[in-house]
This record gives sequence, structure tokens and C-alpha cells, in this order.
Amino acid sequence: MADDFALPADPASAWAAAPATPLVSEQMRALVTQIFEPTATATHPRSEDRHSGLAQQAQIDAPPPASALCSAAHAAFAAALGPEHVRTDASTRAAHANGMSYLDLLRHRLPAARALPDAVLEPADEGQIAALLAVAAEHAVAVVPFGGGTSVVGGVTPAKGELRAVVALDLARLDRLVELDEVSRTATLQAGLTGPAADALLAAHGFTLGHVPQSFERATIGGYAATRSAGQLSTGWGRFDALVERLRAVTPAGTLVLGRAPGTAAGPDLKQLLLGSEGAFGVITEVTVRVRPLPQARRHEGWRVESFAAGAALLRRLAQDGPRPDLARLSDETETAMGFATGGEQGGEGCLLLVGWEGGEADVNGRALATAALLQAAGAHPLGEPAAASWRSGRFRAPRMRDELIDLGVAVETLETAASWRDLERVHAAVGEALRDALGEQMRPVVACHVSHLYAAGASLYFSVIARRDPADPVGQWQRAKHAATDAMAAAGATITHHHAVGADHAPWLAAEVGEEGVALLRAVKAQLDPAGIMNPGKLLA
Amino acid sequence: MADDFALPADPASAWAAAPATPLVSEQMRALVTQIFEPTATATHPRSEDRHSGLAQQAQIDAPPPASALCSAAHAAFAAALGPEHVRTDASTRAAHANGMSYLDLLRHRLPAARALPDAVLEPADEGQIAALLAVAAEHAVAVVPFGGGTSVVGGVTPAKGELRAVVALDLARLDRLVELDEVSRTATLQAGLTGPAADALLAAHGFTLGHVPQSFERATIGGYAATRSAGQLSTGWGRFDALVERLRAVTPAGTLVLGRAPGTAAGPDLKQLLLGSEGAFGVITEVTVRVRPLPQARRHEGWRVESFAAGAALLRRLAQDGPRPDLARLSDETETAMGFATGGEQGGEGCLLLVGWEGGEADVNGRALATAALLQAAGAHPLGEPAAASWRSGRFRAPRMRDELIDLGVAVETLETAASWRDLERVHAAVGEALRDALGEQMRPVVACHVSHLYAAGASLYFSVIARRDPADPVGQWQRAKHAATDAMAAAGATITHHHAVGADHAPWLAAEVGEEGVALLRAVKAQLDPAGIMNPGKLLA
Repeated sequence: MADDFALPADPASAWAAAPATPLVSEQMRALVTQIFEPTATATHPRSEDRHSGLAQQAQIDAPPPASALCSAAHAAFAAALGPEHVRTDASTRAAHANGMSYLDLLRHRLPAARALPDAVLEPADEGQIAALLAVAAEHAVAVVPFGGGTSVVGGVTPAKGELRAVVALDLARLDRLVELDEVSRTATLQAGLTGPAADALLAAHGFTLGHVPQSFERATIGGYAATRSAGQLSTGWGRFDALVERLRAVTPAGTLVLGRAPGTAAGPDLKQLLLGSEGAFGVITEVTVRVRPLPQARRHEGWRVESFAAGAALLRRLAQDGPRPDLARLSDETETAMGFATGGEQGGEGCLLLVGWEGGEADVNGRALATAALLQAAGAHPLGEPAAASWRSGRFRAPRMRDELIDLGVAVETLETAASWRDLERVHAAVGEALRDALGEQMRPVVACHVSHLYAAGASLYFSVIARRDPADPVGQWQRAKHAATDAMAAAGATITHHHAVGADHAPWLAAEVGEEGVALLRAVKAQLDPAGIMNPGKLLA
Repeated sequence: MADDFALPADPASAWAAAPATPLVSEQMRALVTQIFEPTATATHPRSEDRHSGLAQQAQIDAPPPASALCSAAHAAFAAALGPEHVRTDASTRAAHANGMSYLDLLRHRLPAARALPDAVLEPADEGQIAALLAVAAEHAVAVVPFGGGTSVVGGVTPAKGELRAVVALDLARLDRLVELDEVSRTATLQAGLTGPAADALLAAHGFTLGHVPQSFERATIGGYAATRSAGQLSTGWGRFDALVERLRAVTPAGTLVLGRAPGTAAGPDLKQLLLGSEGAFGVITEVTVRVRPLPQARRHEGWRVESFAAGAALLRRLAQDGPRPDLARLSDETETAMGFATGGEQGGEGCLLLVGWEGGEADVNGRALATAALLQAAGAHPLGEPAAASWRSGRFRAPRMRDELIDLGVAVETLETAASWRDLERVHAAVGEALRDALGEQMRPVVACHVSHLYAAGASLYFSVIARRDPADPVGQWQRAKHAATDAMAAAGATITHHHAVGADHAPWLAAEVGEEGVALLRAVKAQLDPAGIMNPGKLLA
């Protein structure tokens, strides 16, 4: 496939509203141009131009493929939801085409390469969801549950598999705080709430969910649950799946209501089958999650440690013996030098370590002081709050920066895994090597990495990759690199994904994660809950 | 059924070796006699006599029912395991009959009422387990995985369902520490290790599992995992299911190897289908669990609080805002007055609260001091370490004391649940009332309770029940009380079991816990993993 991706992105599919000024700093832009000398740059419109220009606009406005939804199915959906909530206009369909991976961003630049759902359904409640699933099963229509559309693993790609048509099930109307139990500190939130919307509802009562993934601005509660999201405070506050006390899910086989107590021995934990189910079994409609009082205090600090290995050993000590930070992030030498963690504004020798605490005043101060003593004794050098502030101010920017970097002619993507402390450095090296080998020296690949999301037994590794984009075959170039990286994770005993989920992109590796027996078990679960196979075909299970 | 249970227990089925002196103190014995004036006491042999006496011995030595295992199946098992590991002698079979519930203890007194497995199989490894499951499927033989035999919910009752015979699969030969990863602080332990054996292996390397359920002396690693055990330090150290990083299970459909990283988003967490599966899907053969360095310091303290409600509010505060104790236990007014928590040696007004910390010196002291300040400010009265020491010295005694109490002519059993903090007192009241109502005033029921196992969102409630035993129908008497209590839990929104598991006894309430849709899903999982239905029939799924 030739590099038509020099074209600008479709604004209907962009991460968020286009920024008034470029997100990629001049310093970063110069660095990228210097390192990669991208071959296609000259032909690329600058990102500033991307919402103007007749040629681009014409492509974006090109008529989408006709809806494959038959009139009987359309009428049945309309009867179930009201006709105004069965949307087939081009812009609504385009806004529900694909997610936000690098390959998705490339596809957004070439509308013809993009799959659109045949319709977008907007149910108001569980009853309407059950009704539309029945219609879909009757008419052989695939259903793709859709929250913020921020999947980076092809999780919301409107694939119809063997079926006749495909619809996106947009959960935006399920946007209520159903219940707040201030005594037990749990909140029941509907699936369509975005992170900021949920936190605004909770803040009115003095609470916060405080779940802050990089996709925070757009991702939804349902998406967090369906993909086992992890957030920037997950080291201290817990992964999203670990916060879920109860959930409700509407499946073609009925509604599951799971979780009655904070601890139970009443058999297998079926909640854990729906968490991470990625819409392949049904639609998570609401979750009851643990919430916290709004923090009185927040402190985020930067430190410089001499090496990735030394930093990882310190993080392990904090995770195992405490005091456990809420935020922990260790950039490797490459990420530190490139200034990726801080928007290109820092850099230097060694490795940047960020630690942070949020909560009660005394608790935050106590943990911060004890941690500082520990780090200083280990030879770490304090950088104070500015280094962390720089990360903090740019922490939601990276996904959106990719559009501008693509404009510069590079391939840019992230991927992630997790491993035990013992295996962490080996996995770090193996994945980096696999990516560099697959991309090839001539593409000047830069692979940077940070540790985040600490556990007692291990941690996650988050890789950022930038390379010259191969103008002859940009899609194949990245697919080969991704394939090599995922193979390396599987071979090293690490997980194929720590928080991006399986989607379509990782589905071929699911057997490497859970064995053929595990995949067969998941297929049996799907057959029970979704006998007609209408739920998000091709995701989770290839 | 008449009260033949005045007979002594079969020593082959007793909790542990019979104690040289009675476990029930004279004070407790007098109290029990005074309160319940048991009608059958006079005819009971004293517990001191229970291993002598010709009449009893004759009953115990009565020939067991003939083994229903056909010679072809026997030969095939012998070929798979070696003939010496297919045991059909009476005492081995008797030692694998039933668990340790009150009704089991009654059955142990009447060997004719007791179901025995047709054989006891002793595999050495996963290969032999896979082979014996294949033989069992071919010959329609039910397989009951058996660890310590401490189930109090009928989890190891040798029921054959619709099949031709039933064997107990004793895991005692799977007794190795397979691997200790000192960096990641995880240990891979085989299923047949008892808690003390596992801790002895770990202690040699400076580590501990520190999982201490009341069944600690006999229960096994496999049992902990298969029943989602909780231990006395679970408030701080986590339930057993929460400690499991990886597990292996041999099922009739193959071997599952699950868990590759401390955090993952690679789809549903299939580990959570095996945890709590109670042998109904397959045999958990090993688990990789988080372990801790042997604690440098341990401090357990007693406090007196004015009421159950006041104590629960304090525990909630510790669980939600810290410092979190490792051990927490709040006796209600009845349990405090009866001295149940301390072997009858204490008592008095208000409620007894035990809190404890284990770990590094500074950590233990810091948490203990902060907790003391918090409790004292709230008006709690310090009782110091002796009250806790009294609990500690007797903490494994209660299950064994039941035999002596049964000798005294009473009905005695425990049951448990968990609920959110908001619902906790309502559930406490509702279950107590249900038990007292079902037993009836004339049986002078005493229902005592303690809170333990704190979570951010709620806690467990553990009830002890003593009443006059109905000599005309002791089994029916308890079944009605248990039924009423479980109905009350389900109606109040609490879980049907916090750590005793489902077994046969709670199976009728599983739909109350997970819905009919949840039960159907579990049946689909069972059909996938155990298509011939040989695995522990009647347990988990009725």
C-alpha cells in the first residue's frame, strides 16, 4: 500500500478537537526531522493545514459506502429505539469507524480504506439494549459496543464477520450516576459516562473515581471495564478491574448481575468473565466501583536515577515494602534522553523517575518524605516538582501528537506488556530488540520505554516506537514490527497486553496467553452468552 | 432421625488427633450446661471416653459398604497410578468420607449414615491425574478432589450422582515447593501441601505464605484455591484468591495454565473460573502465589468498644482510611459475653475488638501506634496483648471443640457471609433473627457473631450458633436453621458465603448469588471442561 497517509486525518475521527497550536513542540519537531529525515515529509500537508484545503475536504466528504442494513432490520431497530436513535448519516457513521491505533490513524487519512458501521444505534437503557440485541440476532447483524472509540487494538472496528451488516451500539445515553453509597464508598456508574463526566458527578458529592488512563478525555466507564483499563494512579489506587465490586451486562442470553459482596467464596468469579470481554459476550451497562474522597493533597516529583536497572530495583522496593506511591513511572535511558515523558522539554543522562501521592495531607506528606529518604539513600537525584509538572501537563497529549508526527512522515505507535520483577529487564531488552530488528536499521527506529503500574510481583512496560515511515508499505511495515514485538512478549513469558486489551490486533496471540484450552473455554462462554455470534465479531477471539 | 449422635465420633474422621485433655474448658462446659440444659446429655459418653468403649468401637469397625468400583475400572486406575495407590481399605475410605461440618460430625457418629468413596486414588503428578480422569470418564466414575478434607459445606462428600461409582482423588503426594522467585516474591506450590507444610518449605528461604484460616492445620493449598479461602490475616495480606498470580489445573478437557503477569488486559481472567471451582471443573494442581518475608515483628492487641455498631464504624475507618491492620476481629455483644473469641476466659460488657499487625519492625510499630491513637480518641478501652494472646492460642481449637460440645448434647455450627459496610448491621440483625426464629425459643439458641476480613467496601460476618439439640430430629433441626439463615443473607443482598464456599450445602442458593443466567453460564463452563460430568457431582452446581 503506497503512503497515501500523507493526507490529513478525518476530523470526525480525530482524538479530540484539533488544537489551535501544534502539540509537537518545535524542539521535538526538529529532533524528529533530524533523527529520521523522513522521506515523505515534503509531500505532507502540515498539521496546521489539516482542517482546510479542498483536496482533503473532498476526500473526507466522499460518500461513504452504502449502508448494508436491510430495511426490515432498520425498521425493527427503529421500533425498539425510536427512529431518531438509528443513525445512518455519513458523519455519525464515520465517527464510529475504527479506534485510535496508528493503523487507525492511517486509515482515517484514506476514507476509502475505512470500514464504516451500517448504522449507529443509541439505546437509552438496558431494556432497549436487550431489544436491539434480539433484533440483531434475528437479522444477522453484528453489534459493536462503542464508548469513547479510543481502542488502539482494533476493538471497535466495525467488522461484520459472516453476518449481513454491522452496527455500532453507542452507549452515550447511559450517562447516569445511578447510586452513590458514601458509607461503603462505592458508586454505581452507567457505561456511557466518560471519565471526566463520571468524576464531575462524583465530585459534587466529594468523591472521585480517580481513574486516569491516557484516553481519559474520551474513554468511558464501560470501556474501562470491557478492556481492563489501567490508569496513571493504578499503582496506588488499583486497576479499573480491581475497583469493580458489581456489574450488570446485557447479553443475547439475558442480563447478568454479578457481585454481591466485597469478598465472596460463592464459586468462580463470573464478573471476571465480563471484565475484559471487549463486547464479545454482551454489553456492560453499569458497574459499581470503589471511589475515594477527593484528595486533599497531591504531590508529584521527579528524580534522576543512574540507570533503568537501578530505577526498577527502587520501584520494586517501593511496591513490595512500601511506602507505595500512587503514581510511579520510570523512563528508560532512551525515553529520558528523548524527553518523551515531558514533551521533549527535558532529557539528559540516566533515567527519569516520577513518583506521586494523592490523598490525605498527612498520608501524602508521610509517604513523600519516606520515599525521598529511601531514594536519596540509594543515590537518586531529586528534580523536584517541575519535572513531574511537565509530565502532568502533557499527559493526555501523546495520543493526539501522533497525528502531527504522522504528518512529519514517521511511523509512531505505542505498545505495552507486563512481567514479573525477575523478568522485567529481560522483557524490556527482548521487546526493544524485536522492534528494532523488525523495523530495520535503515528506518532508524527509536524504541523508548517506561515502567509504570507497579504490583508486588511485577510491573508493566510501555514502549513508544518512532521510525521512518516506509512510503511503499506503511501498514505492512508496522504490522511486521507489532508481530515481532508480540511474539517476543509471548516468548519471554510476559503478557501480550497489560492495559490495551486484545481487540482484533492481539487476538491471534490469545492462545499464547491462555493456551488453546483457554481459548476453547472462552469460545464455550461466547457460545453460551452469544449463540448467534453477533457480539463484536473478530475481537478477543479471532 | 433419632439422636444417635450421642455416640462418639469416628477417630478416622476427627479434625485432628484427639486431645489428651478436653478442649472445652470447665467454665465453658458449665455455661453450656446451664444455658441449654441439654436433654440428651445424660446418655452421652464424655469426650474423654470417646476412643475407648466396646460399643463405640464395634460401630466404627462395622464393615463399610462394599466398593462399587468395577474390576475393569479398578484395573485401569491401578495401571495409571500403580496398584498401591488405588486404596480400597476401610480406614482409608473412611478417612475420605465427608468433611467437617456439624452435620458431617453427626454423620461420623453413625457410620451407617455415612457415604464412603469406593476407592481413594493417590496420583503423583499431573500426568497421572490426567490419566485417571480419562479412566473415570470412560468408566463413569465420579471424582472428588480431596485435600485436607476440612470442607464444612459438603464439598468433599463422596456423591456419585448418576454415575456408577465415586473415588476420592487425594492430592497429598503433590507436596512440593516447585519454585521460589525471591525477586518477584512468588512461590509455586503444589496443591497437596498443607498450610504448615508450605510455610515450613518457605521458611527455609526466609519467606511465608502467612495464609491462616481456622482449618490451617489440615487444609491444603489446592483447597485454599478451589474454595477461595480467607485467613486470619486476610484483612492485610489478602484473601487466598487475591494472592494467586498463576495456576495450573488438569481438567477432563485438558490442562489449563493461566496467569502470565501481575496485571493483564488479555481478555477475561480465566484464573477466576478455576478459583472457587471446588473440583467441579477439574483439579487445581499448583498455584503461584505471592509470599512475604518472614515477619520481623508481630503485635496483636485487644480493645473494648461500647457496641457492635461503634466497633464496626472504627473498623470501617481503618479499612478505608488506614492504617489498615493485618488482623481485625470484632465480636458482637453476645460473642463477647460468651467469651467465644477467647475460649470462654473473658467476657464482659460491650464488644471485644482484636487488631494485629505483622511485618517489619517499624511498620508494625507505626501502624500499632497510629491505630491506638485513633481507637483511644474514639473512646475504646485498651485490653493490651493478653486478650489477643488468648484468642491466638485458641484460634485453631474451635472446629475441634465441636465434638466435645456435641457430646454435651447441643447443636453447634458456624456460618458466614459478607456485605457492604452500609448493609453490615442490617445483615447482622437479619441473619441472627432468622437463626433464632428457625431454631425456636424452646431450643434456647445463642447466636454470636464477629466481623473479620475487612475490605474497603465492606466486611465479613461470621456467626456461631449453639442451641439445644433436638433429639427427635437433629439433622432436620439444623437444616431448617441453615436454610433460614441463607435465605436471610440472600434477601439482604449479602453473599451466601464469604469463605466456606458453596459445596453441596449452598448449591441451592447459587442462583440467588449469580442469577439463573450466571448458573447457566457455570453449567456451560462445566460442560466444556467436564463433558462427562465426572468432576465432584452435586457440588457448586446442584
